[in-house]
Amino acid sequence: MSLRHSLLGLLAEQPRTGYELTRLFDESLLNVWPASHSQIYPELAKLAADGLIRQTASGSRGKKVYAITPEGLDEVMAWLRTEPDHSTKNPSFLRVFFLWLMEPEDAVAFLEREELEHEAKLREFEAKAELPVRDTSREWAFRLALDWGVRYEREMLEWNAWARRVIEERRTPAGSARARR
Amino acid sequence: MSLRHSLLGLLAEQPRTGYELTRLFDESLLNVWPASHSQIYPELAKLAADGLIRQTASGSRGKKVYAITPEGLDEVMAWLRTEPDHSTKNPSFLRVFFLWLMEPEDAVAFLEREELEHEAKLREFEAKAELPVRDTSREWAFRLALDWGVRYEREMLEWNAWARRVIEERRTPAGSARARR
Repeated sequence: MSLRHSLLGLLAEQPRTGYELTRLFDESLLNVWPASHSQIYPELAKLAADGLIRQTASGSRGKKVYAITPEGLDEVMAWLRTEPDHSTKNPSFLRVFFLWLMEPEDAVAFLEREELEHEAKLREFEAKAELPVRDTSREWAFRLALDWGVRYEREMLEWNAWARRVIEERRTPAGSARARR
Repeated sequence: MSLRHSLLGLLAEQPRTGYELTRLFDESLLNVWPASHSQIYPELAKLAADGLIRQTASGSRGKKVYAITPEGLDEVMAWLRTEPDHSTKNPSFLRVFFLWLMEPEDAVAFLEREELEHEAKLREFEAKAELPVRDTSREWAFRLALDWGVRYEREMLEWNAWARRVIEERRTPAGSARARR
């Protein structure tokens, strides 16, 4: 239900079009909760049917603008008071547990590809962090989250460099790690 | 399909019972890919039906023991060669984007509860890191992943303390953050 509550949370700030919400998911929720156009539009229709948002006057070029209703605001506030699920699923990091199945050079190559991903993310987050801060309420929460993104990517890159050294060292004196299986 | 491939990866090391696999998911995959008993057993049945694992002689007290087949090993190696999905979903961190909707004291209380979760995880990972290292192939990959877990939790705790200071400072001179909406 997190897509639903995220949309309500974004609409709690101000009315927005589906396009603006899609862009905000991409730009503002960073990588915490990816959602595509094809997931967002049907969910907006459901939220409207449930009376949690309503369509206001059409925006420029006839775009539908959605606003949160009092019931929608109650719903998002109630969600924020529940305890979050602490399980996360990280499909790329899952591979690390199985690196031992790969030849050491393939394991290192995997980590090198991951490094490029995390470097790109770090650059993206650092660039966002340099933009001027508007003193809106959503903005300060976004800055908190963005700071975490920068810390996460920096730590991941340090870990990645260390992990490659471990794999390289393992293979050097006593032959390949695979030979020790 | 990551549950499927994780089970194959764990069986690539040695034959195991469903109970052992369930325990390994909990203990060895840390929080990267949570899976319950009720997900693991049906998936083992499917893997067996697909010829990727087979039941070997029953273990003690009649427990079923599963072993990977050559086709299963091919399947897990092929998975490791694919590019991973880099999207992650983090339901608890998602809340951070919407902290501005909460009263500052509620936002701080949320972060304090999160701190307890991350402190518990850090203690769990640090305790695992102190256990003697067996020089098996799976073990070194596990140590790499565990090191990331320790780094992640430490960084999260530092971020959490910083984020609470930011929220406290925002409310001090000019009234509550909510008043600035």
